[in-house]
Amino acid sequence: MAERTLSGIGVTPLSGVGSVVWYRPDADLPEPPEPEDVDVGSERTRFEDGRATAERELRTERTRTAERVGEDEAAVFDAHIQFLNDPQITDGVTEAINGGLPAEHAVQETFSTFIEQFENMGGRMGERADDLRDVRDRLVRVLADSERTDLSSLPAGSVVVAERLTPSDTAQLDPERVAGFATVTGGRTSHAAIFARSLALPAIVGIGEELNSVEDGAEVVVDGESGEFVISPDAERKDAVAADDDVAVRPDPVTTTDGVEIEVAANVGTRSDLGPAVERGADGIGLFRTEFLFLDRDSPPNEDEQFDAYVEAVEAFDSGRVVVRTLDIGGDKPVPYLDLPDEENPFLGERGIRRSLGPDATLFETQIRALLRAAASADGARISVMLPLVSTVDELKRARERFEAVADDLAEEGIDHAMPEFGIMVETPAAAFMADQFAPHVDFFSIGTNDLAQYVMAAERGNERVADLGDYRQPAVLRAIDATVSAADGTDCWVGMCGEMAGDPNLTELLVGLGLDELSMSAVTVPQVKAAVSETDTDDATTLASQALQAETKAEVTELLRETQ
Amino acid sequence: MAERTLSGIGVTPLSGVGSVVWYRPDADLPEPPEPEDVDVGSERTRFEDGRATAERELRTERTRTAERVGEDEAAVFDAHIQFLNDPQITDGVTEAINGGLPAEHAVQETFSTFIEQFENMGGRMGERADDLRDVRDRLVRVLADSERTDLSSLPAGSVVVAERLTPSDTAQLDPERVAGFATVTGGRTSHAAIFARSLALPAIVGIGEELNSVEDGAEVVVDGESGEFVISPDAERKDAVAADDDVAVRPDPVTTTDGVEIEVAANVGTRSDLGPAVERGADGIGLFRTEFLFLDRDSPPNEDEQFDAYVEAVEAFDSGRVVVRTLDIGGDKPVPYLDLPDEENPFLGERGIRRSLGPDATLFETQIRALLRAAASADGARISVMLPLVSTVDELKRARERFEAVADDLAEEGIDHAMPEFGIMVETPAAAFMADQFAPHVDFFSIGTNDLAQYVMAAERGNERVADLGDYRQPAVLRAIDATVSAADGTDCWVGMCGEMAGDPNLTELLVGLGLDELSMSAVTVPQVKAAVSETDTDDATTLASQALQAETKAEVTELLRETQ
Repeated sequence: MAERTLSGIGVTPLSGVGSVVWYRPDADLPEPPEPEDVDVGSERTRFEDGRATAERELRTERTRTAERVGEDEAAVFDAHIQFLNDPQITDGVTEAINGGLPAEHAVQETFSTFIEQFENMGGRMGERADDLRDVRDRLVRVLADSERTDLSSLPAGSVVVAERLTPSDTAQLDPERVAGFATVTGGRTSHAAIFARSLALPAIVGIGEELNSVEDGAEVVVDGESGEFVISPDAERKDAVAADDDVAVRPDPVTTTDGVEIEVAANVGTRSDLGPAVERGADGIGLFRTEFLFLDRDSPPNEDEQFDAYVEAVEAFDSGRVVVRTLDIGGDKPVPYLDLPDEENPFLGERGIRRSLGPDATLFETQIRALLRAAASADGARISVMLPLVSTVDELKRARERFEAVADDLAEEGIDHAMPEFGIMVETPAAAFMADQFAPHVDFFSIGTNDLAQYVMAAERGNERVADLGDYRQPAVLRAIDATVSAADGTDCWVGMCGEMAGDPNLTELLVGLGLDELSMSAVTVPQVKAAVSETDTDDATTLASQALQAETKAEVTELLRETQ
Repeated sequence: MAERTLSGIGVTPLSGVGSVVWYRPDADLPEPPEPEDVDVGSERTRFEDGRATAERELRTERTRTAERVGEDEAAVFDAHIQFLNDPQITDGVTEAINGGLPAEHAVQETFSTFIEQFENMGGRMGERADDLRDVRDRLVRVLADSERTDLSSLPAGSVVVAERLTPSDTAQLDPERVAGFATVTGGRTSHAAIFARSLALPAIVGIGEELNSVEDGAEVVVDGESGEFVISPDAERKDAVAADDDVAVRPDPVTTTDGVEIEVAANVGTRSDLGPAVERGADGIGLFRTEFLFLDRDSPPNEDEQFDAYVEAVEAFDSGRVVVRTLDIGGDKPVPYLDLPDEENPFLGERGIRRSLGPDATLFETQIRALLRAAASADGARISVMLPLVSTVDELKRARERFEAVADDLAEEGIDHAMPEFGIMVETPAAAFMADQFAPHVDFFSIGTNDLAQYVMAAERGNERVADLGDYRQPAVLRAIDATVSAADGTDCWVGMCGEMAGDPNLTELLVGLGLDELSMSAVTVPQVKAAVSETDTDDATTLASQALQAETKAEVTELLRETQ
């Protein structure tokens, strides 16, 4: 059988080979019996039992997702549990049962009414409709006991193929058994894509309707780098996949061919990311997100709890540095003990350092205390601190004053502490435009390309309608990076990058050419990026960078990158 | 009596003197009678009559606001009418009346329940709660016939003082009788502030609680430039206000003291803005928003309707240019015949040129036809066209191809047409970073400082929590402007500005120094800006600009501006 290739958006630079397992969660319900044939009492009990089962499932999946992917991604399950217990909805279902419908039909009917209402309401309610749909399908499945592929017990070597994968779906996937997945819909920043990167799974999203023609059991290659989904791959193709998986882990720092050392570090978003970071050979942590310490709880973590978490991270490495980012939270995240605003455009709102210098000042002080103590007492890597979403020099100075004031307090209290290396995230265009004014006040910049691309292009990263515009290969984004690096050139300020762009091995040469000193990424691609660094010649890289900076369009940048591979 | 001064945010560079009229819309309802004393039938009739009265009021205020302020601001009344007729709400009120409550109490109770629900829902629903509150208060007022200051029949020379002014409130204000207003809450971009600028009213918002100490009838000066609210002003202060009002209208183009001509144009957002633009001496229109042609209707305007509107604008001026911006719409505006997406961050979504090149391609084609025809047939000003929210060179080229294809069609059909001057708005950081790549493809840039500041600073302009960050005096914003102007320097591309910044006479010297060729603003400040231009020396201006570009903080920029006044 000849090879046949479909194309989509590759979301992890990994390849896998395996057999297709179609996942089709939609199960049509049979026609309901006549109302007089329905035992209302037992249907009400079935509904209550089903609801309890669904809640148990959701809590398990929540925990699993928090551990494996991160708190951000797990939070969606809280919304699901809330819907499951919403009295308006449950009353509606009970009423429908009283009217003579079996539990699963009552759920289907009641939820669908609410879903329609949410859809008509507009605003963010459209998204809530998706959540409600997810909860409805779960309850109907539990109640109807409908057959559906159990994602948690697939045969080893399965390639999961689906229309889309919801958070509930991905939470069940066992990465030990799944060789990769492919979906009809989805973009680079969809939930499924983030999940794939966190778990180092080969994955392709957004293949389109053609994917529906692939049959269960077909042998396929999922090339998460090129986005190619190859059906009936030939032997050569399969061998290439095997070779691809053989990228060596390099535990030591790497240099370019002409001896320039580039620090290759890992991003850490939960405690459980620390192990993979070390195992995949990261030189340290370039972005330690502290949000996981604050989310999914009723009160903020105290100073000692935070101190322990920072020390644990530092001690995971014998040397190198751990760059801790102070709390980066805003109105798009649910944190019950913070008075987070409802904002029409939360990504342009009160978040990051804006909250730490404003309503969350007390929280910020506790975090600073824990950080200054950790900086003094840690064995292993050095601790560095960076501030999120800085857009004015004023904010930087005010934050620095807070650090100094807390250090004075600690000194007065006789508590051991040290001032860590101090930097800012460059993720607003303002920080890039003003980089020369920021540089004298910091030890380093860390360019956050996800947000930077979003703001430079005015295109939200999670919005598939504008995903192509918000791509980090847009020449305007490269120029914002270049402005930042150039401003730091000749000063003592080093420049790193901790957005998704840093983890794309196809871009390593370009980033070295732009002058980055450090690259930090999801642990999964650390070996690939280290390999790419060690194959880079800085003169060639500089030439490539200056060509890319003169490109008119993203297509030209992509073409340049292809020519140099 | 000695002068006493309160400070707030001045929102129009105009001053006024008058007597305080307090406006307090909250009226407490008396205790309801016993249920058995309520005549349910007549209360239901009262409710229906009250609802009809409220709807009539709303329709009148909608029309008045659309004419006087603009379609954007008028759209809120559509939401109000929708709530007034929402069956869930009206059923709730009727039920409460059936339970024995008088109509106004039933309204109060039912709406308050919904308001609470909306508030608990989060997201944009919080804002809907404000709308519901506005509708509730209106209905209660109509039903209870409660006494409240009638804003439409104030004595001449009134200075309205209030906690806040809602769209319903401002729609009633008669600018002939109101000498200005001042509010406790609000920011530079609040509804009341926009309203004040459209109607050229002296106004101060965000004065804070202190304003409550001012008594009805007190004589006050409202200085909308400094933000000073002066109670019991002395004679000298009042004379200064009178002198301030004497800025001469200059119908001819103005030059700096050393002879550099700066085009001073008006922004036009509705048909009724054309008259004031001419009367205040604008050289032309620097921003003709076409949205008003598309909003508040069930189907898009056809080609002839658009053609007539563009020709009307062009014919309002004997010479000069009218810069028409193609449709700039996105998911934050209600347009029933467009399939606008629900987006979590609509300002980072599918809007402006993104829609014209995507889902609204047919609409775009009709608009292009009307524009090309208007460009050929107009007497008076020349027509120019510009594209909103361009972020890639690719978009510009694709749009230009559309214009050329439509011109070919018209030629084939034998219809008179001409290719107008062609430009882009520079309002994304991407356009500023890539300005040198854009310049060879366009005749002009028009910098939209409202959006540019918002994206550069990652701070939404309508969000009061980040209003200070999003200010156009931030040095990062000045640098984005400088990058744009510098890239066009030495090319044939002229550079204008049509954001709010252009209308601030305190900034005119700085903008001339940055190299702007044209400034376009709300008609009200055209005379002030023309006066400022004619007092500017370009050498001094250039020095000021280079100092401002080296400022570290907004405070330094403000200080520089103060020194040079």
